[in-house]
Amino acid sequence: MSNYQPTPEDRFSFGLWTVGWRGHNTFGKAVRPQLDPVDVVWKLRELGAYGITFHDDDLLPPDSTPAERDAIIKRFTRALEESGMTVPMVTTDLFSHPVFRDGGFTSNSRDVRRYALRKVMRNIDRAAELGARTYVCWGGMDGAEYEPAKNISAALDRLREAFNILCEYVRSKGYNLRFALEPKPNEPRGDILLPTIGHAIAFINELDHPEMVGLNPEVGHEQMAGLNFTHGIAQALWHGKLFHIDLNGQRGIKYDQDLRFGAGDVRDAFFLVNLLESSGYDGPRHFDFKTPRTEDVDGVWEAARNCMRNYLIFKEKAEAFRADPEVREAMEAARVFELEQSTLAEGETLDDLLAEDINLDEVAQRGYHFERLDQLALDYLLGVR
Amino acid sequence: MSNYQPTPEDRFSFGLWTVGWRGHNTFGKAVRPQLDPVDVVWKLRELGAYGITFHDDDLLPPDSTPAERDAIIKRFTRALEESGMTVPMVTTDLFSHPVFRDGGFTSNSRDVRRYALRKVMRNIDRAAELGARTYVCWGGMDGAEYEPAKNISAALDRLREAFNILCEYVRSKGYNLRFALEPKPNEPRGDILLPTIGHAIAFINELDHPEMVGLNPEVGHEQMAGLNFTHGIAQALWHGKLFHIDLNGQRGIKYDQDLRFGAGDVRDAFFLVNLLESSGYDGPRHFDFKTPRTEDVDGVWEAARNCMRNYLIFKEKAEAFRADPEVREAMEAARVFELEQSTLAEGETLDDLLAEDINLDEVAQRGYHFERLDQLALDYLLGVR
Amino acid sequence: MSNYQPTPEDRFSFGLWTVGWRGHNTFGKAVRPQLDPVDVVWKLRELGAYGITFHDDDLLPPDSTPAERDAIIKRFTRALEESGMTVPMVTTDLFSHPVFRDGGFTSNSRDVRRYALRKVMRNIDRAAELGARTYVCWGGMDGAEYEPAKNISAALDRLREAFNILCEYVRSKGYNLRFALEPKPNEPRGDILLPTIGHAIAFINELDHPEMVGLNPEVGHEQMAGLNFTHGIAQALWHGKLFHIDLNGQRGIKYDQDLRFGAGDVRDAFFLVNLLESSGYDGPRHFDFKTPRTEDVDGVWEAARNCMRNYLIFKEKAEAFRADPEVREAMEAARVFELEQSTLAEGETLDDLLAEDINLDEVAQRGYHFERLDQLALDYLLGVR
Amino acid sequence: MSNYQPTPEDRFSFGLWTVGWRGHNTFGKAVRPQLDPVDVVWKLRELGAYGITFHDDDLLPPDSTPAERDAIIKRFTRALEESGMTVPMVTTDLFSHPVFRDGGFTSNSRDVRRYALRKVMRNIDRAAELGARTYVCWGGMDGAEYEPAKNISAALDRLREAFNILCEYVRSKGYNLRFALEPKPNEPRGDILLPTIGHAIAFINELDHPEMVGLNPEVGHEQMAGLNFTHGIAQALWHGKLFHIDLNGQRGIKYDQDLRFGAGDVRDAFFLVNLLESSGYDGPRHFDFKTPRTEDVDGVWEAARNCMRNYLIFKEKAEAFRADPEVREAMEAARVFELEQSTLAEGETLDDLLAEDINLDEVAQRGYHFERLDQLALDYLLGVR
Repeated sequence: MSNYQPTPEDRFSFGLWTVGWRGHNTFGKAVRPQLDPVDVVWKLRELGAYGITFHDDDLLPPDSTPAERDAIIKRFTRALEESGMTVPMVTTDLFSHPVFRDGGFTSNSRDVRRYALRKVMRNIDRAAELGARTYVCWGGMDGAEYEPAKNISAALDRLREAFNILCEYVRSKGYNLRFALEPKPNEPRGDILLPTIGHAIAFINELDHPEMVGLNPEVGHEQMAGLNFTHGIAQALWHGKLFHIDLNGQRGIKYDQDLRFGAGDVRDAFFLVNLLESSGYDGPRHFDFKTPRTEDVDGVWEAARNCMRNYLIFKEKAEAFRADPEVREAMEAARVFELEQSTLAEGETLDDLLAEDINLDEVAQRGYHFERLDQLALDYLLGVR
Repeated sequence: MSNYQPTPEDRFSFGLWTVGWRGHNTFGKAVRPQLDPVDVVWKLRELGAYGITFHDDDLLPPDSTPAERDAIIKRFTRALEESGMTVPMVTTDLFSHPVFRDGGFTSNSRDVRRYALRKVMRNIDRAAELGARTYVCWGGMDGAEYEPAKNISAALDRLREAFNILCEYVRSKGYNLRFALEPKPNEPRGDILLPTIGHAIAFINELDHPEMVGLNPEVGHEQMAGLNFTHGIAQALWHGKLFHIDLNGQRGIKYDQDLRFGAGDVRDAFFLVNLLESSGYDGPRHFDFKTPRTEDVDGVWEAARNCMRNYLIFKEKAEAFRADPEVREAMEAARVFELEQSTLAEGETLDDLLAEDINLDEVAQRGYHFERLDQLALDYLLGVR
Repeated sequence: MSNYQPTPEDRFSFGLWTVGWRGHNTFGKAVRPQLDPVDVVWKLRELGAYGITFHDDDLLPPDSTPAERDAIIKRFTRALEESGMTVPMVTTDLFSHPVFRDGGFTSNSRDVRRYALRKVMRNIDRAAELGARTYVCWGGMDGAEYEPAKNISAALDRLREAFNILCEYVRSKGYNLRFALEPKPNEPRGDILLPTIGHAIAFINELDHPEMVGLNPEVGHEQMAGLNFTHGIAQALWHGKLFHIDLNGQRGIKYDQDLRFGAGDVRDAFFLVNLLESSGYDGPRHFDFKTPRTEDVDGVWEAARNCMRNYLIFKEKAEAFRADPEVREAMEAARVFELEQSTLAEGETLDDLLAEDINLDEVAQRGYHFERLDQLALDYLLGVR
Repeated sequence: MSNYQPTPEDRFSFGLWTVGWRGHNTFGKAVRPQLDPVDVVWKLRELGAYGITFHDDDLLPPDSTPAERDAIIKRFTRALEESGMTVPMVTTDLFSHPVFRDGGFTSNSRDVRRYALRKVMRNIDRAAELGARTYVCWGGMDGAEYEPAKNISAALDRLREAFNILCEYVRSKGYNLRFALEPKPNEPRGDILLPTIGHAIAFINELDHPEMVGLNPEVGHEQMAGLNFTHGIAQALWHGKLFHIDLNGQRGIKYDQDLRFGAGDVRDAFFLVNLLESSGYDGPRHFDFKTPRTEDVDGVWEAARNCMRNYLIFKEKAEAFRADPEVREAMEAARVFELEQSTLAEGETLDDLLAEDINLDEVAQRGYHFERLDQLALDYLLGVR
């Protein structure tokens, strides 16, 4: 067995806010100290990551002066250069500050919406300077608890307006940057706009430049709606919309747990890595997790290390699974490849199709042998084959 | 107060399979007798409905001969003519027969996929003859329990192929018929393709004739994913994709309950009717429910009557709510209308926007007064105002 | 219609932490100012409440000196006396401070468990001084994210030990105080010990003094597990274990929303009040909600007012429902009262029972007329009858 | 690696209705043929099981004559004797027949309740004859969709009456038989009585002979309420109430999936087996699954074989995990064993405890090292250590 040691070629990246999360929530106070972003850069590099990502406010305290900001950026950039770490993605904090209490791009307050746009545009400049190719937008406060207080149609209009403006901004600046929307069904709002991968892709199609906007799906967010994450990623890939991905762990429909990757739905993690690695997806494998409050900073790094380790374990298993001739034979028996054949033959007409008949009772008795195939996969997952 | 007696102008319709459901499920046998479709037509008319809908197999026993089918259709058509009832929508049963054990349009078996297409095309002819304008497609068996057994990308290819074929068929025949996809997250499959309103709209955009295909969302189906149904309908309307609707009741994330409309999430039912009635939606208000097994046939009609009654109750309440000057004033205070204003002013440039500044602390302290507005709505819902 | 103005006889109480919640959570900072507990006392009295409750740390800042604490208590007590407000219940904060990062009574650290017990005992003294009759224990941090890190059997041993100690303490002091456990399935821990009403009642039976310990169920907590709250309360009453209750609103299985009472599952709220008011429950009607972050302090008071208003609305409706002869007739038709008859007759033997026979087919055809009865209830809920 | 071939010493048993499930549900018809119970006995023995269980109606068609029943029993008994298979548990079907449309022991109809008791008592005689030691009771139809139609307090009275009667019956006959209640939150009823392990244990404490009644928890049933199954089993063991167990697979909060054991939540399956095997539980490992409709009979046996195989895989892994010195060291570091120490020392008084003090800030900084321990477990689960 390999030692599952990551290298930059694995394209693993981490949010500064993930390893930096101090452990505060509705019911409890921070349990860990503030980390220095420069230390985080070096530590992540030591662990084997290739990239670090951040919200503007993670790196630059909201109340810092322009001079302080310049100093922080300069020091951070130097650390990146010296360590060889990259910034593949940047994002904006449109949720922590009380001004966003009713949302950012879709706040009922027009001046908040305008402020949110400015905050993003300014941070896009920074993202471009740092060489980021993806700009993630999580509109976690864009939603509602109470139906009469939020006109969803108007909110979608404003959301479209916002992304049309942002695309125009990126184009006018000539930045090589694409947007990735991050869906989530709820929390911190009772119901969030664009709650799933599907809703977000549907929305993107209404934009002026849909080709500039894709998704950043997060494992736990889809699972919070009880949806199969791997199926969601498959659909996103089918639409050409998987621009980035947030890997973590969730255990069913409950609050957003953000466990380390591998610690949630193990089956889904395996099939997800199998899909990503066989689909040609070549973007970052980005971890967005929050280490439980039980842990000190050592535990955070332990969790970060294991996010990558688990990905590599699943990758190794998935490769062996796909290469196994018996698996291939079982897939044949399960008619998996038959689904790739078009239903209508080349040149066949609808009349040809309508003229055909089958022995319904005979076909109905056909078994699909999925149990055998699934157990082969489980054997690989459990490492007993 | 009104007596909430429906009339054909209310455009209420019922599935033959809803009032006709005999009560069988995984754990229990049928508890009610088979109903005669002609009796159902007359009974629904008596109750105040304007339309009846059906799956092919609801009306025409799968093992009936062509002659028997003709006789059934003739008798059914006569009942429609004499009663003045319409058939606004027709659909296909691609799930009951064992041949569909791995799905219809996306079965791993190509001959099943072809059979499914033929079954739909033949029933489309009947739908057109009966004057239906909407053809609903619920692919409840198109999904998977086990990831390795279903290639989702190929399944989406086949689903696209199927709808392209069906659109071509309708166009070639010159039928005035649109398709409405019905999303559902799970049950009877572990995970169903196109699990939500969002996924289905995203999918439709990839079709050759997206304008011919929209949605038939069902209250309980979105609620089975914990999603806000009214928000989903608002997004469907925003995309111009609400072609039809299935009204019923669900109580949270669990098996598909199909309770009568009004018996599930009361809040959501109220805001849904408020949205439908103020949005210009002019399609049928179609009830797709299954009366609990405790009831005999009288209970089924009681439930059917109350589906319509509840809709009319919510409609009356919603109209009063919207007309109340105090509500309007509370909406102003909540800045609800401010969201309709574009974020950028007419002619304003991004530079103009970037040059602006606000007093962040002051704006952050702003309260939105949603509690007051929501309570006004609740007072209307509860009939205490 | 009444104006739904509460009076002290309604026994409405509020947690200091509910109206005082400043709006901080995992994703956002506080949006509202700190309230003065004395102002809260007067405001709640003005709104019609009779009681105020608190965690030790809500009233007494954790870092305050003994002298400061005495001063705070003195000033608070004076406000209670002058306003006529009572303190029916007190509780302990065993979750906010980082020391409780792995729980209180069941922390893996023995010294934390001991500290937690001391913290509770000291606050029990205060509770007794203020005349509280109920001491609530919510062990929200007593749980786990990771199975191997928490020995559940040992945790239940420690939890039993803790309550045996606390009961002994109360008995030794001669306080007239009972404990009320508050179950919750998850959040802030991945899985919490005693996740539902059922688990907590089962646990209590293992204590040295089970008669001293009951429950404080919270609407949203049971609904977070998809359970019917009214059924849960009915079972708690059946066991004689409803010592206190937390009323609020939740919209399905998701993070803990803590909406105002009435804003969640409207149906359940109605049937809950119907049950409470007809069951002889005479404890406080305690509201434990968190006003959404969109609101300023005015919105908080609006929400508090409407918690009580909604309770009174449901109470009025429920009384009318129960008094309606047609409802009684519908309940007869639904055989609701027949369930109160013992299954075996007085003096009947098992042999007598075994000798009996019924016409199975005939009984099987019996309908139960629940649809009619439920619609009558819905008509009352909606105020159309 | 072992070949994971089960032997009778593993105590694996299967329900006749599990392998015999024909695939019918609300949306689809049976896809598989009826199996001969005698063939099932031999096939299960061949696969390595030691026991077979059944509902009365699984073995004895409800409409069979007494003579036919005798013949069936005789033939079945002979197969048991010849094959060496046992019947560790028997249960009653109180849900399939329409007469149970409103429940069995808690139907609103008294004559149905009496019939249900007779049906159980008669089948208890058979269970005793066949040497079963456990009698399972799943009251799946004992619940409600509509609150006003079911008096929960009366229903619990009737349920208590029923179990008091059944215990009396078993005692009067001198049978060596215990009852095991099977909780489930919903489906086929909207809400079922005794929805979780906790509710059922609480209920049992109110019986005349609580020692005769325990639980038969099912993996999927607790997971349908989002609860941690392993935690639930730990609590059941703590109460001495784990009399029997139903092993299967479920993927989150949705309809009852009844997948093969191992195919649902893999993490939970591992920790569950770890707990069962280290707890001294010596009852049957009973599989209650329903093979998906995609499978033919071969797929059913494949699934049955893999239920046992997966159990043995998890057992092997769990043993290795528990035996690993590094795991033990990690558990020490995580203070797992410290939770086994009583919080109060032997002989210590409450005054002693109250006199103690700790350095709160120092203790609060303590990390618990759960991430490392959990990853060690995951490494074992994935077979990479």
